[in-house]
Amino acid sequence: MRLVAVGGSDAGISAALRARELDPTAEVTVVLADEYPNFSICGIPYYVSGEVGHWRNLAHRTMDDLRDAGLYVRVNTRAVGIDVSGRRLLVEAPDGQRELPYDALVVGTGAVPVRPPITGLDSLGPADGVHLLHTIGDTLALTADLDANRPSRALIVGAGYVGLEMAEGLTARGIDVIQVEALPEVLPSVDPGLGAMVRAELTRHGVEVHTATTVTEVAASDGPTRLTVHATGASGQPERWDVDVVLVVVGVRPDTDLLVAAGATTGPRGAVLVDPAMSTGLPGVWAAGDCVVTHHRLLGRAYLPLGTTAHKQGRVAGENALGGSAVYPGSLGTQVVKVFDLVIARTGVRDSEATDAGFAPATVQSTGDDHKAYYPGAKPVTIRVTGDTATGRLLGAQLVGPLGAEIAKRVDVYATALTHDMRVADVDGLDLSYTPPLGSPWDVVQTATMAWVREHDLDRQRAALTSRRTE
Amino acid sequence: MRLVAVGGSDAGISAALRARELDPTAEVTVVLADEYPNFSICGIPYYVSGEVGHWRNLAHRTMDDLRDAGLYVRVNTRAVGIDVSGRRLLVEAPDGQRELPYDALVVGTGAVPVRPPITGLDSLGPADGVHLLHTIGDTLALTADLDANRPSRALIVGAGYVGLEMAEGLTARGIDVIQVEALPEVLPSVDPGLGAMVRAELTRHGVEVHTATTVTEVAASDGPTRLTVHATGASGQPERWDVDVVLVVVGVRPDTDLLVAAGATTGPRGAVLVDPAMSTGLPGVWAAGDCVVTHHRLLGRAYLPLGTTAHKQGRVAGENALGGSAVYPGSLGTQVVKVFDLVIARTGVRDSEATDAGFAPATVQSTGDDHKAYYPGAKPVTIRVTGDTATGRLLGAQLVGPLGAEIAKRVDVYATALTHDMRVADVDGLDLSYTPPLGSPWDVVQTATMAWVREHDLDRQRAALTSRRTE
Repeated sequence: MRLVAVGGSDAGISAALRARELDPTAEVTVVLADEYPNFSICGIPYYVSGEVGHWRNLAHRTMDDLRDAGLYVRVNTRAVGIDVSGRRLLVEAPDGQRELPYDALVVGTGAVPVRPPITGLDSLGPADGVHLLHTIGDTLALTADLDANRPSRALIVGAGYVGLEMAEGLTARGIDVIQVEALPEVLPSVDPGLGAMVRAELTRHGVEVHTATTVTEVAASDGPTRLTVHATGASGQPERWDVDVVLVVVGVRPDTDLLVAAGATTGPRGAVLVDPAMSTGLPGVWAAGDCVVTHHRLLGRAYLPLGTTAHKQGRVAGENALGGSAVYPGSLGTQVVKVFDLVIARTGVRDSEATDAGFAPATVQSTGDDHKAYYPGAKPVTIRVTGDTATGRLLGAQLVGPLGAEIAKRVDVYATALTHDMRVADVDGLDLSYTPPLGSPWDVVQTATMAWVREHDLDRQRAALTSRRTE
Repeated sequence: MRLVAVGGSDAGISAALRARELDPTAEVTVVLADEYPNFSICGIPYYVSGEVGHWRNLAHRTMDDLRDAGLYVRVNTRAVGIDVSGRRLLVEAPDGQRELPYDALVVGTGAVPVRPPITGLDSLGPADGVHLLHTIGDTLALTADLDANRPSRALIVGAGYVGLEMAEGLTARGIDVIQVEALPEVLPSVDPGLGAMVRAELTRHGVEVHTATTVTEVAASDGPTRLTVHATGASGQPERWDVDVVLVVVGVRPDTDLLVAAGATTGPRGAVLVDPAMSTGLPGVWAAGDCVVTHHRLLGRAYLPLGTTAHKQGRVAGENALGGSAVYPGSLGTQVVKVFDLVIARTGVRDSEATDAGFAPATVQSTGDDHKAYYPGAKPVTIRVTGDTATGRLLGAQLVGPLGAEIAKRVDVYATALTHDMRVADVDGLDLSYTPPLGSPWDVVQTATMAWVREHDLDRQRAALTSRRTE
């Protein structure tokens, strides 16, 4: 049994490791275009900030670990074609083109950064102080630039997860940051009221934030700074900043060239469609991670390029490539981000997404303490619970609170509840832990659902009681 | 509609509040023996330690809050009899005996401290430096003693949740603590290997710990300290300590006199049996909290005197007392405790309990980081996962880690998974959150279940794969 995995990041490595776990006799080869297998892309902002001492520490596993697990890893090897019927992968390696025969192929080509339509962007690069950030190679180019040129002022295009983490990372390096977001609020993946809390946190740490502002042009400058950035502001006014570095982090798009050329079908955002077994439909070809459409438990098909998802999908693909019958259980879009001293998380869907998916959603916001207020250090946790008013089903939750308020694991309680289609009104019945320094008899996770119930289910409960009494 | 609730702690108050929430016209009276309604008993150790400034801060709600919620609260009023057929509660109030007519009665008399068979215990009290600790009254007696006599050395009988919290609390006050536990390890509600970690934490903070040691006698002393304590040590040897204060915290037993006299049936540990609606079976009489047998989702009937349980059961009783049809969904025995800088949590069942309940359990221990090791401050989390080897069902989890490792909310993820009868092998499919400062692509909650699966399910997975391939 020869398994070839294309891509040395989460999906490809997970598939390869799972295959070896299930069948230690399988010949498993991983092919990757660069020389950085199994790196934590999510950790890049913390290397740029200086919190991670050496970029090699970002590796989930070293090359030796991968060899010990029985993987044959081919670095600097680009997959350029799939001969589906012949079951051969065409690659360009340092020693030239060659064909790798396989019995099963798992493609995890991942994603590439979106390049927004900014004039000048295509003609400027790392040497000019203009950076896109997605790979370890991009990262090393950025840090080399920062180390060499000691810029004092940077502009970040985009205020999503990576943009916000980079604002923190550059600020930690002593660089003044201007953050520009085209949408009306930062962190557009949560509701604007929570995004406003993130924006306040950015401002509190000296980041200059401009929302509803579209960057239109980046140009090399012969002034005191290297670059000039032009934008259109919230009221249509022209904006202009002189900076030393521009970082463009406005999201990613699936890297599907290899699979599409082989005949794969695409879906939302151009990602490759797979079935619940992670099969592409092409004989002997599975795919996983940022290059595929993800099954979302509430929305159906979605494009959700996340490391957690890639790991899980890769594992399913690796098992099935060997002949197994694993099923990817679906995503809930669970995400968490730390922005300075604030933590923001979400799982499930927000009102607009829920409406699109045919629900009748309503969202209720409440705030409670992370633990009993009488014990020192209680922190406020703000939670927005979304439920279906037609059925009472829990649809999603968004949380914001200070670092230390256990936001990341509180969202996981909601994610686990969502996995089991819980009703909002049943969350208060969960037997959650309590001790005064770390919680409350009703955890804030539960007082938040109780707030939703009071607003959207109490009248029904009262009517049901009245009806029972008069029977 | 006249509802009377007996007991001013979690069960009684929750019942009363839920009744008023559902029917704002209900006349709701709460009768309590002391003058401290709706206090957080779990907070007592943090008042004794000095971390809570005033004992009144321990109140979940003030008397004004309760009045605003429409409750009529009768303090210093002891319920002494129930006329079940006449629907009257007999009470002894400051102004003499009287009868309170009701349409529905919710009894939440709670528990009383267990008095172990220690010679001399019955003849010594707070004035002598010997304390039991369960009520706000007990607490004020203890702190008055500590303030007046400035003891330098205390002995705590018992090393369960409260005993451990008190060891920390007294240490925080600068008192040397000797902790004596009759069982072989401290915190006997978790497996001994984890208890040993707690013991090491106690020792690290200067607590002198004696396990497998039974206190036999407490006597007033005419030496330099107030009290002499005699015990039998682990090897049967006699032990003797001279101390200024003795605290006896070896658990509680249900306070059932009122209900038993009225004809209620009792079950495990002498607690009152109730049905899933929290009805005692006596017409018009519901009961909740530390005085009743709790429905445990995995064990059936259990005695689990916990505040979280009392709140939930009280709410169900309050709804049903009005004519509702609520059902208590059951407990998992989820608990968490902080001991100095360590946090220990459990949910579900351990091997011995699972075996008794008819499962074929196995437990696997593993340790992982609370977040990616490359990000500063990663902390080790040790998890023992218990699963049923016959079905693969998740049965329980025990966790230990340093403060800040989000142990309390990680156990809640397991509790939520247990509520839905998840299989151990399905936990890795949960879409949990990830960002390097706060987690890992597979959270340690998931690597722990994956460790169980590798040990107890991987052979089956491999055989299934082989079987599919040869079909």
